[in-house]
Amino acid sequence: MSVKQTYKSDLEIAQSTELKHIKGIAQSVGISEDDLEMYGKYKAKLPLHLVNEEKIAQSTLILVTAMTPTPAGEGKTTTSIGLAEGLNKLGKQTTVVLREPSLGPVFGMKGGAAGGGYSQVVPMEDINLHFTGDFAAIEKANNLLAALIDNNIQTKTNNLGIDPRTVEWKRVMDMNDRGLRNIVTGMGGKSGGMMRETGFNITAASEIMAILCLAKDIDDLKQKIGNIYIGDTFDGKAVFARDLGAQGAMAALLKDAIKPNLVQTLEGNPAIIHGGPFANIAQGTNSIIATKMGMSLTPYVVTEAGFGADLGAEKFLNIKCGYAGFSPKAIVVVATVRALKYHGGQKLEDLKEKNTMHLVKGLVNLEKHLENVKLYGVQPVVSVNRFSSDSDEEIEIVKERCAELGVKVAVSEGWEHGGEGTTQLAEEVLKAVEECTQPFKPVYDWNWSVEDKIEAVARKVYGAREVEFLPKAKQNLKKIARIGLSDKPICIAKTQNSLSDDPHELGRPQNFTLTVREIEIAAGAGFCIPITGNMLRMPGLPAVPAAIDMDIDNNGKISGLS
Amino acid sequence: MSVKQTYKSDLEIAQSTELKHIKGIAQSVGISEDDLEMYGKYKAKLPLHLVNEEKIAQSTLILVTAMTPTPAGEGKTTTSIGLAEGLNKLGKQTTVVLREPSLGPVFGMKGGAAGGGYSQVVPMEDINLHFTGDFAAIEKANNLLAALIDNNIQTKTNNLGIDPRTVEWKRVMDMNDRGLRNIVTGMGGKSGGMMRETGFNITAASEIMAILCLAKDIDDLKQKIGNIYIGDTFDGKAVFARDLGAQGAMAALLKDAIKPNLVQTLEGNPAIIHGGPFANIAQGTNSIIATKMGMSLTPYVVTEAGFGADLGAEKFLNIKCGYAGFSPKAIVVVATVRALKYHGGQKLEDLKEKNTMHLVKGLVNLEKHLENVKLYGVQPVVSVNRFSSDSDEEIEIVKERCAELGVKVAVSEGWEHGGEGTTQLAEEVLKAVEECTQPFKPVYDWNWSVEDKIEAVARKVYGAREVEFLPKAKQNLKKIARIGLSDKPICIAKTQNSLSDDPHELGRPQNFTLTVREIEIAAGAGFCIPITGNMLRMPGLPAVPAAIDMDIDNNGKISGLS
Repeated sequence: MSVKQTYKSDLEIAQSTELKHIKGIAQSVGISEDDLEMYGKYKAKLPLHLVNEEKIAQSTLILVTAMTPTPAGEGKTTTSIGLAEGLNKLGKQTTVVLREPSLGPVFGMKGGAAGGGYSQVVPMEDINLHFTGDFAAIEKANNLLAALIDNNIQTKTNNLGIDPRTVEWKRVMDMNDRGLRNIVTGMGGKSGGMMRETGFNITAASEIMAILCLAKDIDDLKQKIGNIYIGDTFDGKAVFARDLGAQGAMAALLKDAIKPNLVQTLEGNPAIIHGGPFANIAQGTNSIIATKMGMSLTPYVVTEAGFGADLGAEKFLNIKCGYAGFSPKAIVVVATVRALKYHGGQKLEDLKEKNTMHLVKGLVNLEKHLENVKLYGVQPVVSVNRFSSDSDEEIEIVKERCAELGVKVAVSEGWEHGGEGTTQLAEEVLKAVEECTQPFKPVYDWNWSVEDKIEAVARKVYGAREVEFLPKAKQNLKKIARIGLSDKPICIAKTQNSLSDDPHELGRPQNFTLTVREIEIAAGAGFCIPITGNMLRMPGLPAVPAAIDMDIDNNGKISGLS
Repeated sequence: MSVKQTYKSDLEIAQSTELKHIKGIAQSVGISEDDLEMYGKYKAKLPLHLVNEEKIAQSTLILVTAMTPTPAGEGKTTTSIGLAEGLNKLGKQTTVVLREPSLGPVFGMKGGAAGGGYSQVVPMEDINLHFTGDFAAIEKANNLLAALIDNNIQTKTNNLGIDPRTVEWKRVMDMNDRGLRNIVTGMGGKSGGMMRETGFNITAASEIMAILCLAKDIDDLKQKIGNIYIGDTFDGKAVFARDLGAQGAMAALLKDAIKPNLVQTLEGNPAIIHGGPFANIAQGTNSIIATKMGMSLTPYVVTEAGFGADLGAEKFLNIKCGYAGFSPKAIVVVATVRALKYHGGQKLEDLKEKNTMHLVKGLVNLEKHLENVKLYGVQPVVSVNRFSSDSDEEIEIVKERCAELGVKVAVSEGWEHGGEGTTQLAEEVLKAVEECTQPFKPVYDWNWSVEDKIEAVARKVYGAREVEFLPKAKQNLKKIARIGLSDKPICIAKTQNSLSDDPHELGRPQNFTLTVREIEIAAGAGFCIPITGNMLRMPGLPAVPAAIDMDIDNNGKISGLS
């Protein structure tokens, strides 16, 4: 039905591209071979001393976000990479700075996260499978703390009197594994430890991931790790990771993971990929160090924040920019004709069919996200990521509505044409950058109460009428105050499929109540995590996991990775 | 009290040594830069096409094993590295091929596993902390299978009818974490999966680790993974990993882990470090591919097998050599004056005190291991790893006994002097190699029944009077027969602290009964695992974990790693 079905797969395109040696990519941005820590020929870690605050101050940061995502896929990463290619084509030296893929989605539903078509970062198999080991290191540091906690409960030496019933620190695994969500550990009698109820989160939701992505250097990393709240003693005193003396070994485990990873785009431009928190259940943006590294290397940086602008972009601005002092000069909102039709009521299986009625109806979703971007005092640029099934008429409707709203818009054909397909978008973005004169305005002040901060995001960003705090959340609020986390930002866990906390509410939900079920504490990262609706921090595999289709031949060539 | 206390620590020695670029090490054994997959400047993965069967046939393999270990540490890895340095000093180009350290002992009791003093492999911090990510990849492949199993039980699509009560596949984590040994997963209602009793093993005991270490290439790896036995269907049919279509994705996760890692010794000689099964609860030797790679690169290879000769060496010979066709031309048995005194009844805290009575009494342990080596038809060479607290008189007693037994012996001072301290040992080893004219004889024939194979190792190697099979083990035997694993080797899990299955029985236990509690199935690896005594395949942390002393400064310099 669609022309695209006869096209090469992402993996085939990636595998058929001749990559430059990473030394060449490094050289193009002024990094000497001696500063490179190569991981094979096409990946390298960059030492932290390359971060240069003077250059950062002169570099232009462009954020890519999106309308509310749909199962059809909108191509935010693809657009980010394509836009970076386009800017480079226009002579603006640009680094694209992205998150690392998690193996959960790779083996689950979504597949890889290295862009698509002719807008990819490569080597895509490596990026999608372990990459340089950062996720594994984060997982290990997280789980070392868990082992030290249970060991302290078990042994008499240096016993802190931790009440096992209060331990909030969970183990993590980079895997969609619902069976690990709620577990009982420490069975098998006295030698097996103290029995208690606990669980695993996915590694992307680990507080260590959050910390790594917010840390400025190793000392800061170590201090943040030391601040991790674990649980309480039997007499109600809060216990932190530093009380166990865990921060040194945990930081040592992260000695390489803290360094950003340099790879390349299909057109041989620099890409930095580092850190991978999900945007629904975590803060959804790459590391501060990675963004700083990109800005130290090139005068332009394109970065993405996960899922819709209600999630990744909100957290990018209110958390990451708050901690790092960044202010993006343009915010690109990715939209697709397919997603707009889906939000207007068209069924998933019919999205390739032209339907202007559903399209027009679905525009409200995009409009809400555009309003939200304006809330921050930044002018959005709409990027319509074109698919071959889109009709010209449908594309025109989107462009016209943007024109009515006074919003810049461009059609992006990065998937099909790489940088050649995004020069128009790049030009619109450069205009927006030129017009930007003020730093962005956050949606809330960190000094507000936790409830007020949640209400601010719920009402202003999500469009909720009110917020309901369930009993456990109210209890958590007391603990947050006690631990001294009240004046820090909030990192709301909410479904990515709706602006509301109900994944079935498409379009622009209104008059809804946002339900805060509980609030997790991330004292080390420096935020708390209000959990709304049915959000789970450990996903499950779908009925037919993507893993089943993957293979490798005797020469090491991978297939079936999408 | 001891001079050594004023010496530099292992880490200080390692950090003060100027390393050669790994390109130079590779060049010295004829590997071109283009064939190297560098991981930073001092580590590299080697592609499998460098394995060269012609060169392997001409290369001399030397195995290093030891008497029964003690808490004082005997220095088997140190001796292996020192011996390789010594052979290189004598003009015999030698690669040392070792296992990768596990984070369990690194953060637990034992510390790192990269040698000691002036006989180390470097960069030791990297080797001890994640290294090139092999353990993480093995862990992930193992746990992907677990997630696929629970997902198959949960979902209706492609449901195989697996009975959750029969699932034997456990998750793994490279961590000493007793709380994970016995757990209940799948709690939290219907969406959390099917509740069942299970547990985690340490990654070094993973069947994937065993498979990786026995695989010849990627196709073989994939086939072995497909053969992994998972559990039974409700109507009693055995289910394998291939039935879930898991082998492709699992092998893809191991695409880099299957490649051996090249590093260097302190004296700049080549070292290959790959695979890391423990010798008590797993097969205890590095990968077949690593050994083959070493033998493809240099005419001499020194390799070690874990713990005493009853464990690592037994499994090296009866399992690994059986699968790979290797036959070592010399077997070095490491002994120390301290360990001999310990086995003779001296207390741990008094081992630095001279005591010839306890020393003489403890010689029976060494003698049993020497008898065992002769069982295989190979002449042993005793290496007395000298410590500064050893008296000349004590050393002389050991040498004299060896002379009485007609066994070659040399004092090794590799810890203090590197290759200069091991040339005498190297010369003795070369003599033994020269005298070796026959391939070794295994202790059992794979075609014997599982019980007979266990009895053969128990009686001939351990010195047991009889073997008792507990009811669960008897049940397991039936399953082993049903699955068709009866004609494969056995990989006994037994304490390393005694020749018997009771860790408190020092010296040379006799007239004891070896108790086989249960027998785990490793159909993919191609062996079964009789579990004796109280052996656990997931250790716990000690009262004061080594992790507490570790630190990293803001420049990334690690301290407190021993």
